[in-house]
Parts: sequence; C-alpha cells; structure tokens
Amino acid sequence: MTKLYRNDIKVPCDVPESHVDNYVDNYLRATRSTGRLMMFAGDQKIEHLNDDFYDPNGKIAAEDHCPNHLFSIASQSTIGVFAAQLGLISQYGKDFPHINYLVKLNSKSNLISLDQHEPLSQALWNIEDVINLQATSHLNIVGIGYTIYLGSEHETQMLAEAARLIKDAHRYGLLTCIWMYPRGKAVSDEKNAHLTAGAAGVAVCLGADFVKVNMPHDDEGHYTARALQEAAWAGGRTGVICAGGGSKSAADFLQQLHDQIHIGGARGNATGRNIHQRSLDEAVRFCNAISALTLGDRDVDFALRVYQGQEDFILTEDV
Amino acid sequence: MTKLYRNDIKVPCDVPESHVDNYVDNYLRATRSTGRLMMFAGDQKIEHLNDDFYDPNGKIAAEDHCPNHLFSIASQSTIGVFAAQLGLISQYGKDFPHINYLVKLNSKSNLISLDQHEPLSQALWNIEDVINLQATSHLNIVGIGYTIYLGSEHETQMLAEAARLIKDAHRYGLLTCIWMYPRGKAVSDEKNAHLTAGAAGVAVCLGADFVKVNMPHDDEGHYTARALQEAAWAGGRTGVICAGGGSKSAADFLQQLHDQIHIGGARGNATGRNIHQRSLDEAVRFCNAISALTLGDRDVDFALRVYQGQEDFILTEDV
Amino acid sequence: MTKLYRNDIKVPCDVPESHVDNYVDNYLRATRSTGRLMMFAGDQKIEHLNDDFYDPNGKIAAEDHCPNHLFSIASQSTIGVFAAQLGLISQYGKDFPHINYLVKLNSKSNLISLDQHEPLSQALWNIEDVINLQATSHLNIVGIGYTIYLGSEHETQMLAEAARLIKDAHRYGLLTCIWMYPRGKAVSDEKNAHLTAGAAGVAVCLGADFVKVNMPHDDEGHYTARALQEAAWAGGRTGVICAGGGSKSAADFLQQLHDQIHIGGARGNATGRNIHQRSLDEAVRFCNAISALTLGDRDVDFALRVYQGQEDFILTEDV
Amino acid sequence: MTKLYRNDIKVPCDVPESHVDNYVDNYLRATRSTGRLMMFAGDQKIEHLNDDFYDPNGKIAAEDHCPNHLFSIASQSTIGVFAAQLGLISQYGKDFPHINYLVKLNSKSNLISLDQHEPLSQALWNIEDVINLQATSHLNIVGIGYTIYLGSEHETQMLAEAARLIKDAHRYGLLTCIWMYPRGKAVSDEKNAHLTAGAAGVAVCLGADFVKVNMPHDDEGHYTARALQEAAWAGGRTGVICAGGGSKSAADFLQQLHDQIHIGGARGNATGRNIHQRSLDEAVRFCNAISALTLGDRDVDFALRVYQGQEDFILTEDV
Amino acid sequence: MTKLYRNDIKVPCDVPESHVDNYVDNYLRATRSTGRLMMFAGDQKIEHLNDDFYDPNGKIAAEDHCPNHLFSIASQSTIGVFAAQLGLISQYGKDFPHINYLVKLNSKSNLISLDQHEPLSQALWNIEDVINLQATSHLNIVGIGYTIYLGSEHETQMLAEAARLIKDAHRYGLLTCIWMYPRGKAVSDEKNAHLTAGAAGVAVCLGADFVKVNMPHDDEGHYTARALQEAAWAGGRTGVICAGGGSKSAADFLQQLHDQIHIGGARGNATGRNIHQRSLDEAVRFCNAISALTLGDRDVDFALRVYQGQEDFILTEDV
Repeated sequence: MTKLYRNDIKVPCDVPESHVDNYVDNYLRATRSTGRLMMFAGDQKIEHLNDDFYDPNGKIAAEDHCPNHLFSIASQSTIGVFAAQLGLISQYGKDFPHINYLVKLNSKSNLISLDQHEPLSQALWNIEDVINLQATSHLNIVGIGYTIYLGSEHETQMLAEAARLIKDAHRYGLLTCIWMYPRGKAVSDEKNAHLTAGAAGVAVCLGADFVKVNMPHDDEGHYTARALQEAAWAGGRTGVICAGGGSKSAADFLQQLHDQIHIGGARGNATGRNIHQRSLDEAVRFCNAISALTLGDRDVDFALRVYQGQEDFILTEDV
Repeated sequence: MTKLYRNDIKVPCDVPESHVDNYVDNYLRATRSTGRLMMFAGDQKIEHLNDDFYDPNGKIAAEDHCPNHLFSIASQSTIGVFAAQLGLISQYGKDFPHINYLVKLNSKSNLISLDQHEPLSQALWNIEDVINLQATSHLNIVGIGYTIYLGSEHETQMLAEAARLIKDAHRYGLLTCIWMYPRGKAVSDEKNAHLTAGAAGVAVCLGADFVKVNMPHDDEGHYTARALQEAAWAGGRTGVICAGGGSKSAADFLQQLHDQIHIGGARGNATGRNIHQRSLDEAVRFCNAISALTLGDRDVDFALRVYQGQEDFILTEDV
Repeated sequence: MTKLYRNDIKVPCDVPESHVDNYVDNYLRATRSTGRLMMFAGDQKIEHLNDDFYDPNGKIAAEDHCPNHLFSIASQSTIGVFAAQLGLISQYGKDFPHINYLVKLNSKSNLISLDQHEPLSQALWNIEDVINLQATSHLNIVGIGYTIYLGSEHETQMLAEAARLIKDAHRYGLLTCIWMYPRGKAVSDEKNAHLTAGAAGVAVCLGADFVKVNMPHDDEGHYTARALQEAAWAGGRTGVICAGGGSKSAADFLQQLHDQIHIGGARGNATGRNIHQRSLDEAVRFCNAISALTLGDRDVDFALRVYQGQEDFILTEDV
Repeated sequence: MTKLYRNDIKVPCDVPESHVDNYVDNYLRATRSTGRLMMFAGDQKIEHLNDDFYDPNGKIAAEDHCPNHLFSIASQSTIGVFAAQLGLISQYGKDFPHINYLVKLNSKSNLISLDQHEPLSQALWNIEDVINLQATSHLNIVGIGYTIYLGSEHETQMLAEAARLIKDAHRYGLLTCIWMYPRGKAVSDEKNAHLTAGAAGVAVCLGADFVKVNMPHDDEGHYTARALQEAAWAGGRTGVICAGGGSKSAADFLQQLHDQIHIGGARGNATGRNIHQRSLDEAVRFCNAISALTLGDRDVDFALRVYQGQEDFILTEDV
Repeated sequence: MTKLYRNDIKVPCDVPESHVDNYVDNYLRATRSTGRLMMFAGDQKIEHLNDDFYDPNGKIAAEDHCPNHLFSIASQSTIGVFAAQLGLISQYGKDFPHINYLVKLNSKSNLISLDQHEPLSQALWNIEDVINLQATSHLNIVGIGYTIYLGSEHETQMLAEAARLIKDAHRYGLLTCIWMYPRGKAVSDEKNAHLTAGAAGVAVCLGADFVKVNMPHDDEGHYTARALQEAAWAGGRTGVICAGGGSKSAADFLQQLHDQIHIGGARGNATGRNIHQRSLDEAVRFCNAISALTLGDRDVDFALRVYQGQEDFILTEDV
C-alpha cells in the first residue's frame, strides 16, 4: 500500500476553497495517510447501555466498567479515529489530547424493541457544537458520525438530518461517516448483501465520506467477505467499512477483517467491544494488530503476532 | 421546431429582476434552447436502492454497479439535465464539470410498503445549500427537483415544502421540476389520466416550471399518449414530462416518447434506468437518440439509427 | 348603496400607522369602494384537482381545461378580487397585471376521505412571500386567504397559522379572508346554521376582515338566506361571504345571492366553478351579473339581463 | 380592604429592572389597586362557538348576538380586565380605548369530544405580537392569558408554551394568568378539590401571577367555597381566581363569589356568560355588583342592590 | 474528606476559557467545596401535583401546604443546592437571595399512566432564560436540571434536548444534573441495578456533571447500597446521586444515605419530600443531618444527633 499524498484525495465539491486544506488534513490524519479508516468505535454506552461494559461473570475486563478505559486504549494504541459522543469527549478529552476524535452525533438506547416502535435516533448535537468544542478544547476532531435506520418509518427524518450534518461538516472540512443500518418492520433481513449495497448507495447520495455497514451475508446466509463486494461498488467514492460483528477469536477476527479489505473491497474497519472488553494491555495490542492490517496493509500472521506481543506495529509514514 | 429566443421565455413573476437573466440562461441551458426538457434521471440509488444498478443474472451492465457510470453517461452524451441528489453531485461533480445538473432535493427508499406507512419524503437540502454548492464547485446547476406524493396523509407537508423550495429557487433564477406522484391508501389508481391531470394542475398552482408524471392510462387501461393530453392542458405553463415506465425495446421506447410529445403534449422526457442499465457506449447512444426526439424534433427512424450508431445526433444551435 | 369613503373604514388596530393608508387602499380596491367583496375564487386546481376543469361529457367549456382561462375571465370582467395560489399567480401574473389578486396561502387535494384522516391544510407560503411577490411583480395584491377546518383534530394548528398570517398581513396593510369550514369526524352537520355562526365568530376572534362560509341550512334542512343571519351577526365586523354551492340555473343563482345579501346579511360573494366552467364570453357576462348585485346593489332582473347580454354593468365610482 | 401601594407588590424576579415600574402599573391597573382581579372573560366565541351568544328561545339577550356587546359592557362598567383574543381586540379596540385588556393567547373550539382526541390548544400569538399591538393601538394591555389542559397527552407542549409566554410577558412587565383545567382521558374528576390544588401548584411553578380554576367540589361532591382553600394555599403567590360555573340566580352567584373570596381564599373572579348574556344595562349593573365584592370588598346585600339599580358602586381609589 | 481546591476540579472541555472560573465557582458552591452534592429537591409541585404537600389526615405538616415552606427550609439550613422550576424561583427568589439554586428545566404531572401514553417531559425553559433570570434577579444560580425517561418512545427527543441544554449550560459555566429514569412500556424493571448503570452511562455520554438515579435493587430484589456500585462506575466522571425513595424513619434514611456514599460510590444525595413534609424546624434539622453525612463526611450517629437537635452541624470550610 502506497502512501496517500494530498493531491490524491478527492475532496467533495461542497467543501469550500477555504477549508479544502482542512479537509485534506483531516482525511490524512483519520486514515493515517493510507486512505483506509481504522475506527475504534466507543459509542456503545448509549447504544447498548451497560451491556458491553459489565459482565457479572467476569467475561468483560474490570477496567471496562469505567469510561476512562476507552480513552486509555485510544491514547495508547495506533488507531485512525476514536468515535464517541460529544458529551463523553467533553468530560474526558482534556486528559487525552492526542487522540483523533470522530464525534458521534446521535445515539439511542436499545430498550425499545422493533415490535414496539420504529427506530429513530435524532441528532443530539450539531456541527456548530462540534466546532465550538474544537475551539474550546483544541482537540483533534477530524470528523463526525451519524446513524440512519434505513427502512424505519422515520427514515426520512434521519436522511434529512444526515444530509444537513454532512453538508455542514464539509463546510468546515470535517470528514463524515454514516452508520447505515436497514432496520424496522419493513426490513425482513437486515444483513442481506443486496440490501447492504443499497445502504451504501444511499450514503454516497448523501455525500458521506465513509459508511459503516454491518457484515452482510450472501444468498445462502454465509457471512463471507465476497458478499460485501456489491456494497463496496455501490458506495463508489464513499468508503465502506464494516463492523466486526459477534465475538470471535482474535485469529478469526483478523482473518475476517483481512478478507473484508482484500476480497470485499472494504476501506477500513469499525471495531468496538472486540477491543474495549479486554484489559488495557491486551486491548492496545489488539488495536495495533487491527491497524497492522488496515493501516499497515500487513498479513494476518503479522497482525496475530502483534496481538500476541511478539511484534510491534509501528506506522512510520504519518502526517 | 424553432429555436427559442430569450424573449420567448415566460419568466415567472416571483423571479426578481436581478435574477431574470439567470433564469433565462438556466432555461435555455436546460432545454438547449428548445423549450423541451431532456432529463437523465439519476436519483434511483436512494429511491430504488441497488435494484436498478445490480442484477445477479447480468441483465444490468457491470459498469452500472458503480455510481461513476451515471456521470460518465451524462458527460459524454447530449442531454438537457442530469438529475441527482446534492450529495452524489458533491462527491463526483468536480470531475464532471460540464454537465447541466438538476439537484434532486428529496428522496426516500422503497423499503416501506404503502400498507405499512403513508409515503413521506422530506427535503434533504434547501436552496441555500444548492447555492452554496454552486459557489464552492462552480458547477452548472440549472435547477432543482422535488417529489410530492399527492394523496398521502403527509401531502400537506410535501406541498408546503415544495412551495417553499420553488419560491426560493425562483428567487435565485433556478428552474424547478416537481415529480408529482399520486400515492397512498387514498389513491386506488395511480396512473388514471384524470388524476394525472389533477397532479399537473397542482404543480402549476405551486409555480413549478416542469412537472414529471408517470405515463397515464385511459379509461380502458391503455397507456396511450392521448391519455396524457388532459394533463398537458391542466399543467398550462408548467411543462409536463413523462417517465419512461417499465423496460421495453429501444424502438418501442422511442416511439412512445415521440407520441408523448406529439400526441400527448409532453414538453420533454425523464429517463433513468432505460439509459444507465446499458454499457457506457450504448447508454450514450441511447441518450442521443432520445435527445434527437426531444431536443432535435427528429422522427423515430432517425432516433433509432442514432441508437444503432448509424447516425450522429448533433445539436447545433446551443447556448 | 352609497360609496364608501376612506374614513368610513374600520381599520383593525394591529395595522401600524405606516400602513393604514395601504390597508384603506386595499379595502377600497377589493370592495370597489362599496364595502362588499365580489370574489372570483380560483383555487380549485389543488382543492378539487381537475374535477372542476374537465368533463369528458363536455359539460365544462373546453377553454377551462387550461389555467389561462381563469386569468382571462378575471381580467376581462368586473370583479373585486381573484383568489388563487401564489404559485399560479407567479406563472401567469405578468400577462394579467390589472387584476386585483387575493393570494390563497393554503390548499390541499380532495383525495383523502374524512374517514381516513382528519383534514389539515398547512400554509404553503407566508406573508413575506406575498410581499416579495408584490415587489418582484408589481401586481395588485390586495389581500390573502387561508382555509381552516374547524373541528378537525388539527384545528389548533390551523388556528395558529391563520392567526399568524392575519397579524402579519395586517402589518403590511393587506386584507385577510378566512375560508372557515367545520369538518372532520367531530362535525356531523357541516352546514348547520348555528355552527356556521360559530365559525364566523371564530373568524372575528382571529381578526379576519372577511370570512367565507358555506351556505347554511335552517333546522328543517332548508338552505335559506335567513339561515345565514345568525352568522352575519356573529361575525360582527368580519364580513361574511358565502360560497355559491352546487350548480343551479343562472337565475336561481342570482336570486340566491341577492337574498344572501339582503336577507342573510352577507357582505359579498365567493364564486368559482359557477363562473369558470362557462366559455370566456359567458363567464365574463356572469361575473358582471354577480357584480351588478354585489357591487352595484342592483336587482335580480337587472343582473339577469347583464348575464344575457342585454345590459352592461359598469361600476362608475371606483378607486 | 386597604389600598395596595406600589411597594406592596411582589414583583417576580424575572421582570427586568427596566420593566418593574411597568409591571407594577399593570398590576395596579388590573387589580384597581386592590390586589384582587375582577376579570370579565370574553373568549367564548372560540371556546364555545356561538352557544353562549345566541339562543333560539330568547334566553340570551339579542344584543349578545354581536361581538360589539362584549366591548360595550367592558367599557361602561367597573371591571379589572376584559379578557379576549388578540384578533377580536384588534377589530374593536380602536373604538374602546379605555378598557384594560388581558390578551387571551390560545383558544380552541368545543367541537371535539374528549373521547375522540386529547385536548390541545396552541398559542395563536406570541408576546411580541401583544407588544406590537400595544405599539400600533396604544391600548391599555395589562397582561396575557393562556389555557393549559393538565393531564392531556399534550400537557407537556402546553406547559412549555405557557412557561415561555409567562417568561416573555414578564420581560415586558405584563401580568400573566393561566386558565388551568385538568382534562383528558387520564382525568376522571376534573373538579376534585385536591386535583384543583395541584393545578394551582403547577401555575406557581410556571411563574404565573394568577391562575383561573374551575370551582372545585369537596369529597362529598359539594361545590363549597371551603373546597377551594387547598388550591389557594397551593398557589401561594399565584392568586387563584374562580370561574362562575353554570347559570344561577344573581343572588346565588354573588353569595358564592363572596364565599370564594372570604372562605376559599380566592383573589378575584373570572366571569363571562353570566355577564354578557344579559342586556347591556343589566350586564353593566351585574358587572358592577361583582366588582363591589371583588374590588370594593362590600357585602352581598350591597352588591345585590347594585345589581338591582338601587345603589351605585364607585371605585374611588384608582390608579 | 479533604477540601476540594480549584485545581482539583475536572472542568469539561466544552466550557469555554472565559467561563472556566465561573464553572469552578459554581462547582465549589454547589458542593460546598467537597465534591459531593447535597440537593434539596423541590420540583414536586408539578411532578406529583399536591400529593406531596397536603394530606387530609395531617401526615404532612401544615406549613407544607404553601410553596413558601420550601424556600424557608432551603434558606435556613445547610444544603448544597435547592432544585426548583424557574417559574417558582422567579416568584419567591427575591425574598430568598442566599440560596444556591439549581433550576429544574422540565417537569410533567403524574396524571397520565404509563399504560395510556409513553412519558415525555419537554424543556419549559432554555439556558438563555436561566441566564436572563440570573441577570434580572442576581440570584445564585449554580446549575440546571433535566429529566430523561430512558426507554420511552420519546427518548430520542429528551436525549436531544438534554444534550443541548448541557452543552449550553457549560457554555455559561453552569453545572448540569440529569434526572435519569428508565420508564415506559419497554422497561419492565425500572430499578434494576444493571439498567441503572446503563442510565448513568448515558448521562456521562451526554456530558452531564451529575446524574440522579433511583435507588436500584440487586438481582434478589434487595435495595442495597452495593447495587449502586455498577452505576457509580459506569457514570465515571459524572457523579451519581440517589433519590431517597419511599418514606422511612430518619435513622433508616440516614443509614441508607451513608451506605450509598461509602459502599455504593454515590457522590451525594437528592432529597425532597423526606425533608419538606416536616415542620420548618424539623425539616431544617433533617437537612443539616443529611448534610453532615454528604458534605461533612460524618457518621450516622452524629447525623442523627443533628436531626434530634443535640448537635449542630456547621460546615466550616466553604467558598
């Protein structure tokens, strides 16, 4: 993988001249000059409440009980961006000034079932709030994120909010990533490959720079990296990144990610609980293993050795 | 067909003096000085998700898997306008600066059935966003589009939004086109000719310059060009253009369009998947064949030869 | 009937000093210095779609198929105001600069039945849009109109919107007319005389200058002019005008209007399809016949002769 | 009862320094320097449509058919404030410049039953509109009123609107009165004394100066003045005033009002149809009789003689 | 417990430089330089109507019938903050200028059952209103409060409103406290410990400084202080404070509070009716007993003696 230069970047044409440099800087920072996004996703404290952070049987590391853990991992490992809600960043950011933050602008809890109510997640903050936070905190905020539940009866409201946020973010040269999840009574198979491609296509029509989708399955129900390819095509210039899905062994996880990138056409990864449910030391090593694949374009064996502490992954060419 | 001169154009009187020239320029650009609109419609990536772009059995050209295809067609053929969402234009527009863009301002997916929820499609962007995009990109943005589901329980919200967008667009001298589709539980026959005429009448009351309707059928259920005539009358100064409908042979398609214009009173065409599902070369020829009818006022035989590569259609008198 | 002088006019006290003259001018123009309003209502292309404009059996004049017809009638006959949506005026107004326009600010289609959904009609434009149209077009815009469905579950939203529009219109010296129709599941008898009086009372509490109601019936179900009297009292300074109702012979129509004014206390008329479904020549004569009653205070015989082309009605004392 | 001096008045601390004098002036005007509010309520033309103004059997005076009657009474009798909608005041106020007006900011019709739809009454005007009316009309506008249906599913919307209006009114030194009515499916006994006290408590938490409640009944269902006491306590600095309830003899009405004040702790009265359904002469005498109790602190016998024309009630110490 | 110094305080990084001192001042005032919050909660007059203030059997002190009582207690005892609605503060604040106020920004009545309607409580005031009140009143307003019903179908609206209020409050250096209550059809066990921890986690993601939760129970249904610990961890820098729950003896209450702090990790208390339903003298002593635990870090025996009037609790080191 060759280093990305400033002129290689396709800057969306709604970014004003005055902020093109800013956009390019953010793109290079977020992708560590590789064009690929390694996202450490830390927005689950609203999305999943405390389910991902505390286990009475001890399957989750005790350090994860406290939100501080997320920031410790993000600051001590090699990642692209750490995604978290603006409020969480405002409480901890001052002590972790070197992280690249991607501000997640909406979130909802998982209390209400799809049977009860169609999913809706409104923006909790606007781009102006992100810019204000940047001004008051001097943090490295490189972009924003927003979740859309495609197929919900409230779809149109979320599409409109996302379009507005993407446009406003671009005005300030911020990157944008849409979490695009087909969900609701109208969606019988959330992870269908063709539907996932449709989701990626919606993201590019909204002007997003990246779109996070769930790992799709093919027509036989197999979650194969090849099933992601249609989505990668449909997304076009909007880079498709994939969630890790259910827990699996580190080796399986890393192999899957490698396939997503090299077979499915993914332009990065978005990984959350697979990272932070481990102890700090292990979580840092796992982050670095993921980055070895996504940012370093290394093979699975190398990444596995990084995870096992037998290798260091050092990203040499950085911005 | 005679060339349209600046003074021939009926400028709506909500266009301010300062922007009359702009409106006239946009009208002449969009209609290539003919008064007829040849619209290449490319908003289906939200409206139909990936259904129009990917077929596992190969009935859709592989080039269509990627959004780049739409822009390639639009830039290499003779068309009036290319209609697409603002976000899509912002991602690709810089590489395709010579297209006339019509910015589609709302869209919704096709996931929710009419049985489940009355159709609603809110504006994703405002005219100010269009003007900002024009300022940052220097693209040829000549107008805007918006879909209304007439008869939906949310009709009043879409009517209000459309009225606002048309008025704001005119303030800047932009053309306006309403996609007007009767739809919802209250609508038993979406393509009834009399209802279609009602839809066209609503568009002129909103002040739209063009209205895109579906091909209506007559009382016996036949989709004849004559069934369009009532709508063309009802629209008055708002030019009625027609969608192509389901797939058919190129010859049938071109004959139908010729009839829509010369029997039904249509003032142009709006064509999408009939164009982009073909390979680039064929799609360009098909575009030019359509333009031979709409913009060149040529006969069906000539258009067919253009499609078959036996003739070139060159629009000589352009702005 | 004596001519109305400037000082006779009760200017509502929310009209600012700077616009009192403007209000008085508009009042005198709209009522042709008589205090009575002759309104040619032309907002049916949204309200009734194409039902009022096209009849396959030829009962509607062919000229009515095209919106141009409405403007031709309004410009060639003696009327007080022509009521139409802002968008329609913006498309045709430049060619018909001498009409007094009353801008209808909301409208909805008739597709949805009361069984399906409670009626709601939101404003499509605001007063600022009306003022902008006046500035760009130099048309004689003398006032605005808005429909309220009293008794709908959305009543409070329409009351609030109407109150805002009336107040804003008065700020610019524009006249205001409310179309006040009791409608919805809660309304068992829309044309009850006592309910109609309630509707008129609501209009005066909103500060409207005129209120258009449907012709009420008395307790025995008879549509008599006397049944209108309670409404005329309840409206107080808000002048009650009446729709013409279903089609009837010209003689019956004119007799009914005469009774509405002289027995029921109406301060004018609001007439639509009874006018525009006729050919241009006949429509102009019928308009003038109505005006002979409303504006000229002549008797029914005279009006009938005007309609039959045996007399000319000329309004001598005009502003 | 001793005269109220400027320094006796507890000015809410959200009134800015610049408008404290204004608030004090309005308080003294509205209470005629007594601290008690005699409100002539005239907002029924929306709330009850024409039911309170016209009776085919003649039980309502013919003068009441026309809204002018309300203003004649208010201008010719001794009252504290006349409450009416802004629109009604704007149509008649110029001819009645000496009335103290309290502008009622919301109202809804009585057409929809509680079974059909939970009650909601949105603000029709804002404080800025009241201030503008004052500026254009020079009327004595001393305060505003707003109705909340406590317990409605739309309660939170009305609470929010009321809080905003009270705060904005205080910013300009205007008095505020909340009509607080428990109503909706959740309310089984609207006039329960304990619930009424709750309603008064809500009003003081919103910062209102007065709260109008319906006459409550005690646990045995008796409408006794003593049942009002809990509410008067709960309201604290927010003065509780009581509606008159159903029609009764003048003697009974005056005795009840006397008890409300002297036993129940009411700080005034709010009376509507009991006043305006009488002929002008009788209505004026009845107003003055009420004021003899509320403002003059006289006994019931004296008030009755005022009503019977045997005494004059003159409020000597006025602002 | 050691005194908190200015530099110990973790100021959220959305507080602008210009207001950091203000935030620190408010934090020290509210926590009396201890880092713990002793909140006297007085927002029940809307939340519980008059149920907490009046008991026909005399179980509530008569002084509590009148809102004045709340302010008397708050001004005569040692507390951290007194929480009440802006309107209530505006009516009484001028006479009680030395209280630290926390302005409760939303409230709803308890009339509607969860079976009837999902809970929703909208903001009644904004931060600008709080700042205006501070400016007009010169009161010690140190922060704001807002209730979220997590799991309600309206959750997303309340999350968005809370996020906005927290961000705006921080902009002015105000403290923020979220009342976070899981509630609605989707919530089967409101006081589950794991769910309560989820609620605390949501609060830190919103950026709140404190979160008030209900006392949780463990898996066996026991309300033990240990069940609170997971929430205290999940809240991280957002201090968890606990409501007192149902009425119990003073000794039991104080023991429970001591355990909440020393076993459960609570950073203070929020106590309402347990205080104000007592007579003024007793309520003041009870307040001081609570403060002896929360602010003075004394043991339960000492606190009990304070309550019994055998000891004075004096907070020596204050700001």
